[in-house]
Amino acid sequence: MTAKAIVDPRDNVLGRARVTDTTELEIFYGELAKRNAGAFWKRANAIEPWEPETRYRPTLWRYAHMRDMCLRAIELVKPDEAGRRVVTLLNDSDAGRENTAVCGWLFSGMQAMRPGEITPAHKHTASAHRFIMEGKGAYTVVDGHPITLGVNDYVLTPNGCWHDHGVDAEGEVSIWQDGLDIPLMNCLETNFYAVYDAPAQAAAFPVNDLPQSYGGAGLRPEGIAAWDKAYSPVMVYRWDAVRDALRNLAEVSEGSPFDGHMMRYANPLTGGWALQTMGAHMQRLPGGFRGKAHRHTGNVIYNVAGGQGYSIIGGQRFDWQTHDIFCVPAWTWHEHVNLDPVDEAFLFSFNDFPVMEALGVRIEDVFKDNDGRQICAL
Amino acid sequence: MTAKAIVDPRDNVLGRARVTDTTELEIFYGELAKRNAGAFWKRANAIEPWEPETRYRPTLWRYAHMRDMCLRAIELVKPDEAGRRVVTLLNDSDAGRENTAVCGWLFSGMQAMRPGEITPAHKHTASAHRFIMEGKGAYTVVDGHPITLGVNDYVLTPNGCWHDHGVDAEGEVSIWQDGLDIPLMNCLETNFYAVYDAPAQAAAFPVNDLPQSYGGAGLRPEGIAAWDKAYSPVMVYRWDAVRDALRNLAEVSEGSPFDGHMMRYANPLTGGWALQTMGAHMQRLPGGFRGKAHRHTGNVIYNVAGGQGYSIIGGQRFDWQTHDIFCVPAWTWHEHVNLDPVDEAFLFSFNDFPVMEALGVRIEDVFKDNDGRQICAL
Amino acid sequence: MTAKAIVDPRDNVLGRARVTDTTELEIFYGELAKRNAGAFWKRANAIEPWEPETRYRPTLWRYAHMRDMCLRAIELVKPDEAGRRVVTLLNDSDAGRENTAVCGWLFSGMQAMRPGEITPAHKHTASAHRFIMEGKGAYTVVDGHPITLGVNDYVLTPNGCWHDHGVDAEGEVSIWQDGLDIPLMNCLETNFYAVYDAPAQAAAFPVNDLPQSYGGAGLRPEGIAAWDKAYSPVMVYRWDAVRDALRNLAEVSEGSPFDGHMMRYANPLTGGWALQTMGAHMQRLPGGFRGKAHRHTGNVIYNVAGGQGYSIIGGQRFDWQTHDIFCVPAWTWHEHVNLDPVDEAFLFSFNDFPVMEALGVRIEDVFKDNDGRQICAL
Amino acid sequence: MTAKAIVDPRDNVLGRARVTDTTELEIFYGELAKRNAGAFWKRANAIEPWEPETRYRPTLWRYAHMRDMCLRAIELVKPDEAGRRVVTLLNDSDAGRENTAVCGWLFSGMQAMRPGEITPAHKHTASAHRFIMEGKGAYTVVDGHPITLGVNDYVLTPNGCWHDHGVDAEGEVSIWQDGLDIPLMNCLETNFYAVYDAPAQAAAFPVNDLPQSYGGAGLRPEGIAAWDKAYSPVMVYRWDAVRDALRNLAEVSEGSPFDGHMMRYANPLTGGWALQTMGAHMQRLPGGFRGKAHRHTGNVIYNVAGGQGYSIIGGQRFDWQTHDIFCVPAWTWHEHVNLDPVDEAFLFSFNDFPVMEALGVRIEDVFKDNDGRQICAL
Ligand SMILES: [Fe+2]
Ligand SMILES: [Fe+2]
Ligand SMILES: [Fe+2]
Ligand SMILES: [Fe+2]
Ligand SMILES: [Fe+2]
Ligand SMILES: [Fe+2]
Ligand SMILES: [Fe+2]
Ligand SMILES: [Fe+2]
Repeated sequence: MTAKAIVDPRDNVLGRARVTDTTELEIFYGELAKRNAGAFWKRANAIEPWEPETRYRPTLWRYAHMRDMCLRAIELVKPDEAGRRVVTLLNDSDAGRENTAVCGWLFSGMQAMRPGEITPAHKHTASAHRFIMEGKGAYTVVDGHPITLGVNDYVLTPNGCWHDHGVDAEGEVSIWQDGLDIPLMNCLETNFYAVYDAPAQAAAFPVNDLPQSYGGAGLRPEGIAAWDKAYSPVMVYRWDAVRDALRNLAEVSEGSPFDGHMMRYANPLTGGWALQTMGAHMQRLPGGFRGKAHRHTGNVIYNVAGGQGYSIIGGQRFDWQTHDIFCVPAWTWHEHVNLDPVDEAFLFSFNDFPVMEALGVRIEDVFKDNDGRQICAL
Repeated sequence: MTAKAIVDPRDNVLGRARVTDTTELEIFYGELAKRNAGAFWKRANAIEPWEPETRYRPTLWRYAHMRDMCLRAIELVKPDEAGRRVVTLLNDSDAGRENTAVCGWLFSGMQAMRPGEITPAHKHTASAHRFIMEGKGAYTVVDGHPITLGVNDYVLTPNGCWHDHGVDAEGEVSIWQDGLDIPLMNCLETNFYAVYDAPAQAAAFPVNDLPQSYGGAGLRPEGIAAWDKAYSPVMVYRWDAVRDALRNLAEVSEGSPFDGHMMRYANPLTGGWALQTMGAHMQRLPGGFRGKAHRHTGNVIYNVAGGQGYSIIGGQRFDWQTHDIFCVPAWTWHEHVNLDPVDEAFLFSFNDFPVMEALGVRIEDVFKDNDGRQICAL
Repeated sequence: MTAKAIVDPRDNVLGRARVTDTTELEIFYGELAKRNAGAFWKRANAIEPWEPETRYRPTLWRYAHMRDMCLRAIELVKPDEAGRRVVTLLNDSDAGRENTAVCGWLFSGMQAMRPGEITPAHKHTASAHRFIMEGKGAYTVVDGHPITLGVNDYVLTPNGCWHDHGVDAEGEVSIWQDGLDIPLMNCLETNFYAVYDAPAQAAAFPVNDLPQSYGGAGLRPEGIAAWDKAYSPVMVYRWDAVRDALRNLAEVSEGSPFDGHMMRYANPLTGGWALQTMGAHMQRLPGGFRGKAHRHTGNVIYNVAGGQGYSIIGGQRFDWQTHDIFCVPAWTWHEHVNLDPVDEAFLFSFNDFPVMEALGVRIEDVFKDNDGRQICAL
Repeated sequence: MTAKAIVDPRDNVLGRARVTDTTELEIFYGELAKRNAGAFWKRANAIEPWEPETRYRPTLWRYAHMRDMCLRAIELVKPDEAGRRVVTLLNDSDAGRENTAVCGWLFSGMQAMRPGEITPAHKHTASAHRFIMEGKGAYTVVDGHPITLGVNDYVLTPNGCWHDHGVDAEGEVSIWQDGLDIPLMNCLETNFYAVYDAPAQAAAFPVNDLPQSYGGAGLRPEGIAAWDKAYSPVMVYRWDAVRDALRNLAEVSEGSPFDGHMMRYANPLTGGWALQTMGAHMQRLPGGFRGKAHRHTGNVIYNVAGGQGYSIIGGQRFDWQTHDIFCVPAWTWHEHVNLDPVDEAFLFSFNDFPVMEALGVRIEDVFKDNDGRQICAL
């Protein structure tokens, strides 16, 4: 939103601000400023662009590098001093660094935990979710519900829930990606934080009670207490089931030209998003898939669940392999390619689409030229 | 609703009709009758009972007998002459026989089909669903979507959809139970019927496209045409998945004292019932389960999916084993018992609870005396 | 639904039952009957008509006559003996008389009350609403909320609410029409009834607190207890406001070719019907209005709020004037005509459309021939 | 969110970041920075405050002054050059000036228009609404619907609608307050803008067709095209009706201890907010009203619709009279007082509560000490 050196010629039309400033006007502007006021026409064209112009850049983090960083953090700080021993992913832009944002108003980090370690119990208005990348024996406890975590599982830590995480003493070093809407909660001035009065919660329910009660396909348990939360009771979505569901879909559907076969992690009680402020998907790119380009409002952060390929984002090619992380900023053209001619690739992603939908501004655009694909020196 | 010989003493209170008829009143009643009118107080107590009094009786149909009947029907009539070669289950009451109802305003029948046979394609305002009891190679086609059917699968034929059923030429004689709300649609004067202009629909979609697209647990497909129907897109709920979901629930929950572990066949896009007018459940009674009694508005028809036990319904014991069918009329006390001390039993059931809920009259009552169990000579 | 002497020629097509009975089949039918079963094909065509065939007849009640009947009832019985001193309107058909129904599964009656009289407090699962035809000083108390009633006001007594009615000692003899879904609640076996432990409720809230809190157009009160009921908090809809709203609509819209200008009495918190099982409308027929014919599922009972005209219902003309009552049974063609070339006419009506909608069977059909009007000897 | 000079002592507890930096860590931080990453514990306490800390200050604009500014703008610029000749209200804070925000992510401005002037037709993703302060003959055209505007009327210009405004040639200079969510749309990178291909829209509907169709209290028009927008069809809420509704409420309710008698401008088809991203209220403070203090997430901008009094906001007193504008930033204590012992005062306000609700973060807190009132040198 910095001043543009060159004026957009489209701004010289009826309905746009195009006042020529005069001495009288300058005096007027000074008087307005004294009264906490300004002339709308001075800033109108800047604050009402013809279309969104993102402050963020497409950015990619190699798992090989970031994994090392996480393992080094293990050596350097203790979880009970760090609070959470998280390596934060910062978008390669001023906005990313200022807002502590991976993309848009979304936060993301990676953390490694050793067997026997715990992250102290706490809660916050920001919602969180996690995608497990490696290890054994990881778990979380959310409002007293213990949940075990395996590789490529997706787990929720909703808005306002007490939570602590850890790895069983018999487990292995575990690494996951966190996604939170901390920047959004800060920008909306709605962020509350509290610490639990003990390092960890005691289990108040059987292990995995929520996924085992609500994780039946097209089934809803009866005769137990009614679920009255705004988030999905499934809590954890297992990799095997998600992969199989995508393969089932692939047998009967060509999928999307942009995203291949794609499943939303949903709330089975509403069909909507699992959380109120962040969504997540797993998508399957068939062997040889060469997607078409589109763009939309909202921000997406991808984690490669398996396979290798590349994405063209804003005209720039980003090659990726398993557990690399990359992002697509709002209203930026993007397309995905699976480089393996036979084997499928899987992309996990999370986004702020629920915010876009709730506010009536989820808007999409399809790339029309060049058979639907961006021109890019490959 | 026939006149009671003995007046309910509670009817002699303020707020009840208790007029003593006189000659003048008799004259008045006659004049009212001439004008298509009547005196409310003459019928008030009869049409406003203190609580519902069902016109239906608990009834049980042995699978051993009814299976024979279905197989005999195969020999006696052809599907293209019968339309549907269904043996109708009639409640053991005047209401059942008059309304062609298994219980309440619900219809149920059983049909057997031989390999290569088809039921001619048609549609109706009444909704239908089916529970498969035996055979191989059965299928249905619903609005062009082909769906394969296995034993203990539950499948929908919603309101207004074209449908035809059959058994593959390579299959085996198949038997299923049909449930429909034909009596309700007739009583509401909303029943429309039409025949298709060919004996069977051509497949317009890949086999099992709907269950394979929407049958992932807690997942919702993206990038395909939005589902805009009022019924569940899952269409068929497979036995193996339902059984496993119940066992998962059983590991983490004691279930209901009335129904053990119970899953509603749900619409994953709404969390609600799969159809607008009829619901269905599968429940698991653990080995040795001895349920407590309750009663509620709405009618339930059970099909024993596996195991043996008995139910006490309105004070009368009904023993059951696999694929026996029985019903519980509205506002009638009932409790279920699994006679096997170790092995689980499964009851499929369907009901009119969606109607009760939509109209704001789903009401339940718990039996309080005798430790929650009816007194009954066992 | 009695057997037709002549077989519908359309029933001799594939997809309809057309079995020729044989001796063997007759034996089979006998065996089925012994097992509470029957052959579906014997009744299929009867219970699955090509389209609904109503059991009800269009019927009209003249206010001049019915008013007399109500006033005579005042002389003949006391409210505390009658419970409710209501003259019941019975559809001119067997179904009407058997089901105590004005049309469909709807009950309607008229009652006159003298100043100082009260109807004893009670409640029932059946929902009720009323339309005031004449008098002064009438009131109702619904769950402790006192509501004053004027001519042409429409008032709710929802499902399960305690209610009593009366006329102030300083008022005048008042007459209103009641509408209830008693027959529906009986046919669904969900009818509960209870009497209050006092003749009348004490006011627990200021007079007219609900209409004064929720009766602002497009406004919703804040800072008071949240409304958590399934019915409209407005409770009473005043005639002046309804008439003005219709005239406002008439200034900017041609209205419906079938119904002129029409307003639904709505729940402003949902936009839906004011009650879960019955709807109501006020419609305005401009001077000279000659409506077109349509038909639909669901039943409608009209009360002429003002003016004179006629309706053609099922090919038969019914002339009406102020406070005459008439009904249109399900799936019956109907059209309305205002006989005054200049003055507007108003029709109040209530219906069972909410039931049709909740169950997915609200279906409409437009009369196409003869410029959209039925042929009828006028 | 600038660094605090003094560390919050509560940050030295388990669950908060409290790492002591070392040389090794500094080297690690440098390596992270090279990879677009950072250490979460360095910023955790800053970005996860214990409770929200607003960037905004309570600010008041006197109508006497701002009116002058608007009238001067009339002399200095033409509407077709300015686009919109709006004087922007800027919160008295860095955030306000940077974000062009009146408070939170909300924009507000004031504009005066002379008879015969028009604002050129355009549309934007940002939603807008207006509150009329003085003049005669003002109007707006929204997606072809012409709407007349009077003093203290509240009118919508929803997200994505074409709109132009003006004052009839026979009218008088008119002044109104605009509210928009331009800053929110910019911060979410969802702001689109377009100009119409003519200076003004032609009327496509009768004048005031929407308020006259949907503005009946508790009534919903039938027989016209179904409303399928996410915003209220009422479009304009007239002052007389709003004032009367508040007085009706005042007769039957004590109202809220914080806000007196308060009405939400609602969507009568949903009961929810009239727009998806901004809400608005009119509240009535009875003569002598001395409100209690509360605070909540979300931002509120007030316009005094009538009367005189003061509000204590964040411990500071702001005196106000008719058409003064002031704001209450998020999570700031506030209470309102009507200085007239007899006459009622009215406050119009708009807010971002719909955003808070849609994202699950509408949170409120009541001031408990000092009989619920802030301590403030009055
Ligand atoms: Fe956390
Ligand atoms: Fe995308
Ligand atoms: Fe059928
Ligand atoms: Fe039951
Ligand atoms: Fe009653
Ligand atoms: Fe009609
Ligand atoms: Fe605008
Ligand atoms: Fe407030």
